[in-house]
Amino acid sequence: MVFEEKTMKSDKLYEGKLLNLRVDTVEIPDKKYSKREIVEHPGGVAVIPVTDDNSIILVKQYRKAVERFLLEVPAGKLELNEEPRETAVRELKEETGYEAKKLEYLLEFYTSPGFSNEKIYLFLATDLVEGEPTPDVGEFIETVKYNIEDLIKMVERGEITDSKTIIGINFAKKYIDKKQ
Amino acid sequence: MVFEEKTMKSDKLYEGKLLNLRVDTVEIPDKKYSKREIVEHPGGVAVIPVTDDNSIILVKQYRKAVERFLLEVPAGKLELNEEPRETAVRELKEETGYEAKKLEYLLEFYTSPGFSNEKIYLFLATDLVEGEPTPDVGEFIETVKYNIEDLIKMVERGEITDSKTIIGINFAKKYIDKKQ
Repeated sequence: MVFEEKTMKSDKLYEGKLLNLRVDTVEIPDKKYSKREIVEHPGGVAVIPVTDDNSIILVKQYRKAVERFLLEVPAGKLELNEEPRETAVRELKEETGYEAKKLEYLLEFYTSPGFSNEKIYLFLATDLVEGEPTPDVGEFIETVKYNIEDLIKMVERGEITDSKTIIGINFAKKYIDKKQ
Repeated sequence: MVFEEKTMKSDKLYEGKLLNLRVDTVEIPDKKYSKREIVEHPGGVAVIPVTDDNSIILVKQYRKAVERFLLEVPAGKLELNEEPRETAVRELKEETGYEAKKLEYLLEFYTSPGFSNEKIYLFLATDLVEGEPTPDVGEFIETVKYNIEDLIKMVERGEITDSKTIIGINFAKKYIDKKQ
């Protein structure tokens, strides 16, 4: 049997710029209690930009949380009152310079539902028009372009290690296979 | 240009049961500074159990962080001094009752590298032997079984919303296609 966990108490421990932390005390069956550590996150979008010649535009950036450079699909967090589609258009332009004549919503998913409510909305961007990136202040990003077949191999070899990017590459591959 | 971010100061704000929170002050180009909110997580494993008749064993459980029931591949966090492979064997048995005669490491990925170092090691479990689940105290889990083709449709329809599970299903599909 599975049960919903009723909140008996909720303690806010931190309210930050990007995220908040709270600890909920929940009731579990047999009238017992347990603690749940929860990271509140506004959610974000990720965009898979597929070019006419079946390449994908990725961005390379330093990720302090993991202390390394990662290759990722363009992405960013939802700003206040922003629709995911608007965020996708804005982040694609800011991070890569590209604009998409077609932007298709694919799916949404939780990155780490064991401790965070972060949800990512994934979009497929096609019919791309190249332009100049306009990164945020303090954001240092490099745009790179890879053929889809190379990217599939890079995932298998462990050279792409970001979950939303792995999901995005799989969907791009399906889209490209169907198109051909 | 991309740059490594040098830590100038690191403040531990919370040390919990599952996770810690710290805020790092980092140096960015032009001798400016920025804050990085970072959730430290021990990392975990996820296991894709594929049966001989091409079904996948999933678990259904309530996830307080997102306030809903989710369908996920069996998974769990790394205990102290535990190798990912041991965690995979243990969690598969605890959550589903199954034991795998073959357990193949597939890949590892970060769930949310923008704010957390959580890394998941993904394994493929085959040649399964059924048994009784032995969940942890306070863990309420239901085992469910789906055909791979149905699962692919469930991902597309938005009925599977956990990132590691979406990645796992894609890899299971590749494994099954290759086998046939």
